Amino acid sequence: MKELLVIKIGGQVIDDTPTLQRVLKEVAALSTPFILVHGGGKLTTQLCERLGIETRMIDGRRITDAETLNVATMVYGGLINKLLVAQLQARGKNAIGVTGADNNLLLAKKREHPSIEFGFVGDVIAVNVAGFHSLLESGVVPVMAPLTHDGKGQLLNTNADTMAQSIATALSASYKTTLLFGFEKAGVLRDVTDEGTLITHIRETEYQTLKESGVVQAGMIPKLDNAFAAIRSGVARVIVGKADRLTDLLNGTTGTTLTHE
Amino acid sequence: MKELLVIKIGGQVIDDTPTLQRVLKEVAALSTPFILVHGGGKLTTQLCERLGIETRMIDGRRITDAETLNVATMVYGGLINKLLVAQLQARGKNAIGVTGADNNLLLAKKREHPSIEFGFVGDVIAVNVAGFHSLLESGVVPVMAPLTHDGKGQLLNTNADTMAQSIATALSASYKTTLLFGFEKAGVLRDVTDEGTLITHIRETEYQTLKESGVVQAGMIPKLDNAFAAIRSGVARVIVGKADRLTDLLNGTTGTTLTHE
Repeated sequence: MKELLVIKIGGQVIDDTPTLQRVLKEVAALSTPFILVHGGGKLTTQLCERLGIETRMIDGRRITDAETLNVATMVYGGLINKLLVAQLQARGKNAIGVTGADNNLLLAKKREHPSIEFGFVGDVIAVNVAGFHSLLESGVVPVMAPLTHDGKGQLLNTNADTMAQSIATALSASYKTTLLFGFEKAGVLRDVTDEGTLITHIRETEYQTLKESGVVQAGMIPKLDNAFAAIRSGVARVIVGKADRLTDLLNGTTGTTLTHE
Repeated sequence: MKELLVIKIGGQVIDDTPTLQRVLKEVAALSTPFILVHGGGKLTTQLCERLGIETRMIDGRRITDAETLNVATMVYGGLINKLLVAQLQARGKNAIGVTGADNNLLLAKKREHPSIEFGFVGDVIAVNVAGFHSLLESGVVPVMAPLTHDGKGQLLNTNADTMAQSIATALSASYKTTLLFGFEKAGVLRDVTDEGTLITHIRETEYQTLKESGVVQAGMIPKLDNAFAAIRSGVARVIVGKADRLTDLLNGTTGTTLTHE
């Protein structure tokens, strides 16, 4: 089975130009096929402020009204996405910037919640495996903005972490897939204030114990629960760690690697 | 030789929702493979105004400073491009929204002018025929925003008309290519105030005479000169006319068709 990497880089990486350049240098040097999923960073909030559009968050999720969706489409789908593509091209890596609407890659359903009106926020309900396959086999790197569509003409704002996870899970039937979450932290730490306490490897059998003993911090639990769900659904491994140390993350010399066994 | 359509729709079509919906209905019903190139319309100017960015035009061309380029990347590459893609998907036509940076489709050179500093404006110097071919053969419609890149990481604002022409010319080696400019007018008119004076067909041999006798209006001459240049470079025919009457334009019952003979 061919290998595939699904690499998600967070907003804080996008916002910091030197870090982003290091990340792009590392990803451009990869010989394994990969898909790059990017978050949004502060640019959307900043643009909303300049335009006088109020940003509302509930439980860390942006409430996406029609105007905010337009800003997200411009910033995620336009500015950030095309900048990443142009920068990858400059480094000799052929890339194509897409949303879930493009090539019908990700179909989503507008989120319905009994009490919160999230607005134009979507959860992925179908991954077009053949569509990704076609792009990957032509040797181009899909660069994914965190936007999807509902198939009826409506774009939807979509969480980049869960988008990356949906893609990795769906493609694990045809590729030996590694899902990598690159962010500003070293990985899973026993003590969040001390990077020397990095846990380098967590097997699923050990995870429950780590969780119950309080070694894994509360904030990481939803992320790790999702990661192990992806592993149970066929993803070979999930790696979390510093986005600009990609090679080291992949060879296990830094970051936290999660596996089934 | 397979047929291919390169369809350019202008900014005024984008700005007018009912017209745009009719255009999308017509293009979605096409059985011939096609590439859709879109202009920008008023949205970029409007967003620049809201952000307090001054719009400067010289000879009808926008001067693109760094901030204006960001707005163009957001509006052309994000908002308009992804809206068109989502709307085509809703009409059952698989599409992928791209700029010249994506899949390295169009390489451009920053425009240099002895006296005018156009800013981040690029002229196409290379069309990635294999890249277009790969997308077209996978059955997806490339939807092109008027942006290119210089291969060194810089995005460039690019005129949509000349972009469409460059693409049509380059692809005419592998496809029998029709280049269609859809706008708000009926075509080439003898009297610009009277749509009844439409010239339905102009052969290259007749064009010089029409130009010299003043039948073709001054404003149309650069467009028609470019169109005949495309025909001399291998494009089978160029059609100009109302964007929302696509089927009629293609079968010659409206619009102006330009051919070599």
